[in-house]
Amino acid sequence: MVSFVSDYTTGAHPEVLAKLAETNLEPLPGYGADPYCESAKEKIRAACGLPEAEVFFLTGGTQTNAVVISTMLKDWEGVIAAKTGHVSVHEAGAIEYTGHEVLEVEQADGKIRPETLSAYLAAYYADESHEHMTFPGMVYVSHPTEYGTLYTKAELEGIAAVCREYGLRLYLDGARLTYGLMSRNTDLTLQDIARLCDVFYIGGTKAGALCGEAVVFTKGNMPAHFLTSVKKRGALLAKGRLLGVQFDALFTDDLYFRIGKHAVDMAEKMKDIFRARGIPLFIDSPTNQQFVILENGKLDRIAEQAAFEVWEKPDERHTVVRFAAGWSTTEADLAVLDAALAE
Amino acid sequence: MVSFVSDYTTGAHPEVLAKLAETNLEPLPGYGADPYCESAKEKIRAACGLPEAEVFFLTGGTQTNAVVISTMLKDWEGVIAAKTGHVSVHEAGAIEYTGHEVLEVEQADGKIRPETLSAYLAAYYADESHEHMTFPGMVYVSHPTEYGTLYTKAELEGIAAVCREYGLRLYLDGARLTYGLMSRNTDLTLQDIARLCDVFYIGGTKAGALCGEAVVFTKGNMPAHFLTSVKKRGALLAKGRLLGVQFDALFTDDLYFRIGKHAVDMAEKMKDIFRARGIPLFIDSPTNQQFVILENGKLDRIAEQAAFEVWEKPDERHTVVRFAAGWSTTEADLAVLDAALAE
Amino acid sequence: MVSFVSDYTTGAHPEVLAKLAETNLEPLPGYGADPYCESAKEKIRAACGLPEAEVFFLTGGTQTNAVVISTMLKDWEGVIAAKTGHVSVHEAGAIEYTGHEVLEVEQADGKIRPETLSAYLAAYYADESHEHMTFPGMVYVSHPTEYGTLYTKAELEGIAAVCREYGLRLYLDGARLTYGLMSRNTDLTLQDIARLCDVFYIGGTKAGALCGEAVVFTKGNMPAHFLTSVKKRGALLAKGRLLGVQFDALFTDDLYFRIGKHAVDMAEKMKDIFRARGIPLFIDSPTNQQFVILENGKLDRIAEQAAFEVWEKPDERHTVVRFAAGWSTTEADLAVLDAALAE
Amino acid sequence: MVSFVSDYTTGAHPEVLAKLAETNLEPLPGYGADPYCESAKEKIRAACGLPEAEVFFLTGGTQTNAVVISTMLKDWEGVIAAKTGHVSVHEAGAIEYTGHEVLEVEQADGKIRPETLSAYLAAYYADESHEHMTFPGMVYVSHPTEYGTLYTKAELEGIAAVCREYGLRLYLDGARLTYGLMSRNTDLTLQDIARLCDVFYIGGTKAGALCGEAVVFTKGNMPAHFLTSVKKRGALLAKGRLLGVQFDALFTDDLYFRIGKHAVDMAEKMKDIFRARGIPLFIDSPTNQQFVILENGKLDRIAEQAAFEVWEKPDERHTVVRFAAGWSTTEADLAVLDAALAE
Repeated sequence: MVSFVSDYTTGAHPEVLAKLAETNLEPLPGYGADPYCESAKEKIRAACGLPEAEVFFLTGGTQTNAVVISTMLKDWEGVIAAKTGHVSVHEAGAIEYTGHEVLEVEQADGKIRPETLSAYLAAYYADESHEHMTFPGMVYVSHPTEYGTLYTKAELEGIAAVCREYGLRLYLDGARLTYGLMSRNTDLTLQDIARLCDVFYIGGTKAGALCGEAVVFTKGNMPAHFLTSVKKRGALLAKGRLLGVQFDALFTDDLYFRIGKHAVDMAEKMKDIFRARGIPLFIDSPTNQQFVILENGKLDRIAEQAAFEVWEKPDERHTVVRFAAGWSTTEADLAVLDAALAE
Repeated sequence: MVSFVSDYTTGAHPEVLAKLAETNLEPLPGYGADPYCESAKEKIRAACGLPEAEVFFLTGGTQTNAVVISTMLKDWEGVIAAKTGHVSVHEAGAIEYTGHEVLEVEQADGKIRPETLSAYLAAYYADESHEHMTFPGMVYVSHPTEYGTLYTKAELEGIAAVCREYGLRLYLDGARLTYGLMSRNTDLTLQDIARLCDVFYIGGTKAGALCGEAVVFTKGNMPAHFLTSVKKRGALLAKGRLLGVQFDALFTDDLYFRIGKHAVDMAEKMKDIFRARGIPLFIDSPTNQQFVILENGKLDRIAEQAAFEVWEKPDERHTVVRFAAGWSTTEADLAVLDAALAE
Repeated sequence: MVSFVSDYTTGAHPEVLAKLAETNLEPLPGYGADPYCESAKEKIRAACGLPEAEVFFLTGGTQTNAVVISTMLKDWEGVIAAKTGHVSVHEAGAIEYTGHEVLEVEQADGKIRPETLSAYLAAYYADESHEHMTFPGMVYVSHPTEYGTLYTKAELEGIAAVCREYGLRLYLDGARLTYGLMSRNTDLTLQDIARLCDVFYIGGTKAGALCGEAVVFTKGNMPAHFLTSVKKRGALLAKGRLLGVQFDALFTDDLYFRIGKHAVDMAEKMKDIFRARGIPLFIDSPTNQQFVILENGKLDRIAEQAAFEVWEKPDERHTVVRFAAGWSTTEADLAVLDAALAE
Repeated sequence: MVSFVSDYTTGAHPEVLAKLAETNLEPLPGYGADPYCESAKEKIRAACGLPEAEVFFLTGGTQTNAVVISTMLKDWEGVIAAKTGHVSVHEAGAIEYTGHEVLEVEQADGKIRPETLSAYLAAYYADESHEHMTFPGMVYVSHPTEYGTLYTKAELEGIAAVCREYGLRLYLDGARLTYGLMSRNTDLTLQDIARLCDVFYIGGTKAGALCGEAVVFTKGNMPAHFLTSVKKRGALLAKGRLLGVQFDALFTDDLYFRIGKHAVDMAEKMKDIFRARGIPLFIDSPTNQQFVILENGKLDRIAEQAAFEVWEKPDERHTVVRFAAGWSTTEADLAVLDAALAE
């Protein structure tokens, strides 16, 4: 059986694994002070077009969100996020665990509109008792969003402009960033993101690493004594090399982007298959995840040959399911999927 | 130059790395639900002689301490630890970050004496205002301790008895557990530890893994909805396989114990070298770390050939340094050390 | 100028103040162990018809919400509240500060409908990944609500039934409870509330006390070592007598209910005045707060004689304002208001 | 029976109570925005000789410590305190609940010596791994200390100098400040304290108020949006007047200092009685609390006539007990004590 369950069902991309093996015997300092971390940071800075950016490696996505948000917010502040944002719904209260509120706003296709943000902030400051309410201090966006959708450059610029107007920091969760950057339907580059956001992360776990996310502080704004704050949150890896070596490999010979492009190519072919088989798309996603509407009766049969993730149940007779492509998805996998749908 | 800086300066033991490579392409469920996690848990249960034990994999030591302590303590409780305990000193306040107090008690060679514990608890309950003080809810011990020393079976039984008397949980931090178990001077087995402690962890990071610690709940006492609490603390790894596969390798063919024995053997030979060269031991450590007293004048010269960690400065003219052996320490490394000391 | 700004603009009801003065010189034990606290608890138990209830006095409303919610929730749980609930909006993130998420649901007139709750819980448990989401552990309702509206007995029974079905605790915020109990349009008694809720509080600050809220645990479910948890949250008053004496006075000769009835009577007369003057009600509130729609042009003129609180701006030309009655509101105050509206 | 149990066993000083009664019917804005709060702040600034000081009223001592420490520390910092400090021992972990570590140091008579502090900080920064340890960010001293002892001006200047050298804030817990200021054996004035400390509080609860502590920020350093942070911690009183009116009374006609002087006078007479009766002092306290060593056989008999607090048991046959004087202690009370000791 082939798996389209997610983009993190297989291990590491072979080039990542090879680099881990190749450097395995070198004695290196711990806690991120090794030359591979340094090299990886340098390559990420170059890719972002920001020679002055500060980069820090963490282990997973929820951890990264909690560490970044809680160290960048002031005591009296919370973070604005879409109701469907990962921090709003799927992190078991990890942000609240740090003592900060997630201020949920309406979304459209998983995205926050600049106007929504602007209206929220205007209303907040118009409220005479707003000192009794959590101050909005940051905006959290995910790109791609939880629905596989993408912000346009104009949209992200719009959000960044509102953030500047109200003195909020803008944070972009790039757990699946490469699939957004390599989408065929995007005008937003890594350099744009680095320019517009105060902080963002480049996801490794869902893009060919065993684990690891690279946080990029773009404006000389890495919190003071960040290593100590990371340690305090139990998020400092003793063998920092595990993260440094992997990101060094991902940013060598454009591997990170090749992984993204491959998965997007596979997802587009998947989309062609769905169309050819008359299966309606739930969302016309421009990234590596495809959401389709299946008749309940066919679910089990398909599942025998191609694993997927159940997303939601729009009515009694249908189910929305997600098929994700990743670095290890092959043409052969697609052929199995096509055959499974045919039956 | 050879390195004795710590037991986590090199990557993974080759058998661990091989298993990661071998399983790399298998699509597996995330978050620890894969068969390698299951297999590793089963092997750990067998090694502990506790078929009913619950096992959960986490990423690093400080994280593990914070997750275990904060989920097992009640709201009104704190954890007792030696003043020199890792949770007391070297975790940047990670336990306090969870809202719980570390209640520090006197130590001897890094260990808590049962009598010290007993006296502390008697005094606490004798205090008429003790409801205004943090209730002691757990005892934290590290084995080996931060000084490389070991509890005897009688000592750990003594502590466990006091814990039972006062209704405290006993937690053992086994970041370097294998080096304690494989010491030539110990009567405390893994089965003893599993029997005496309410919870403990088997350290992977410092024993041949890239990362990973295996928490063992010994009395059907894993906190309810533990996965959710782990997620809430940003400590749930998406690719749980990374931990499962490594621990599966570590507990195949006794690899975990072979790693410990090898490092202890190397450390004992190191001790012979020190003695032969007339270098005094600071502590006569029975585990993989050796602490010696060097004349300041010799520090730089030795450091050119064999890296070590500076521990403390007992007087103006001497320095205590730590030499650690690990899975990758070789006889050739020891020969370089010997030569460096000879000069 | 007279004030209708809120029900806590004047000091303590004279009977409360008299009791403070009368007992002032008695030496009493601290921290709530005095006989006035005991007597007040006994009277509250009697009023609730629950001889076994446990009562604890705290100082203010937000503090009470944070203490009760954070000590009754499990680590992995959050509290469900209406989007307009005090804990959702107006406590500056006090619940999140304790590490717990507020799970916001839709409201109608400030109230949660049983069906809304039921649907939320069904969807939560139907989600296959709900272990990655905060578990709902408690329902928070305010009565009267932030809009001065009231739950009917059937509505609260409906919510309690859903709570029982899903194993959630039901918590009622009674900051203004007396105005709900003494409303002319309610079928919900104090005994009903005590029977249906797991915990609730009887508000003193907004009902004639200088400060103080009485938390009632109705099912032998006061958290263990609650005094210590209260102390840990900085919420334990040294001179507990301040709370005990006031509540003893409030529950002597039905003072608490007389205060509520007086304010409701005044508010109903206020409503008559508004009607007579042709001023539309924004909400037809059955309690001590009246919300009316004023033309912007008249705001300043009225404000010169009768102070009120601005609530919201429904359109360019109108403003919703709140007029609150309390224990100290008099017929003379109403006459001033009437005159102010006449101009 | 007369009570010497503590300085907070009786209610409010009559002048405080009178002011509460006198202002009771005035409608006032909530949350500390009333003119009595403003007037009290102005009088406190004048008493401190610091026209620019910022003053904020809170309700109790543990609450004040937790609010001040947690809002003034940075994320990576902890607070240094004597092992015997109130925050170290008697606040049920309230500081840790805010996520910050209390770094305990040795004490002498309840005081931190400047040399102890200096040595601690030097060792901390000399440690190469100090980034893995909580940064010291503040020093907490209590004056009078938990043992009723006092810092000299030179000692506090010494501590302040070390704080400046290392960039730490100095915080003085003045729960019983008036008894220190009015001691016959002190050279430290309120103005000295205001000049040397970054922040301190003037205790009301233990000096004639029903509740209330006045926090004084001396260097334009009140944390931004402090009201919101106070609200977030459940520490913002709705009827702020309760605190403002009381402190306004306490700082009218030197009442605060008169209360202190009276209690110290009573305590000195108490000391004379102990000496005349041949009862040894445990500590020769210069403030309102006297600690004496009683034979166990006499405890019960004395307790029948004069209540006290048991402090500790130095040996099998003796008990250290505390007798405290307060605003309401009278010559008649002392006569009863004298008689009780005579028997």
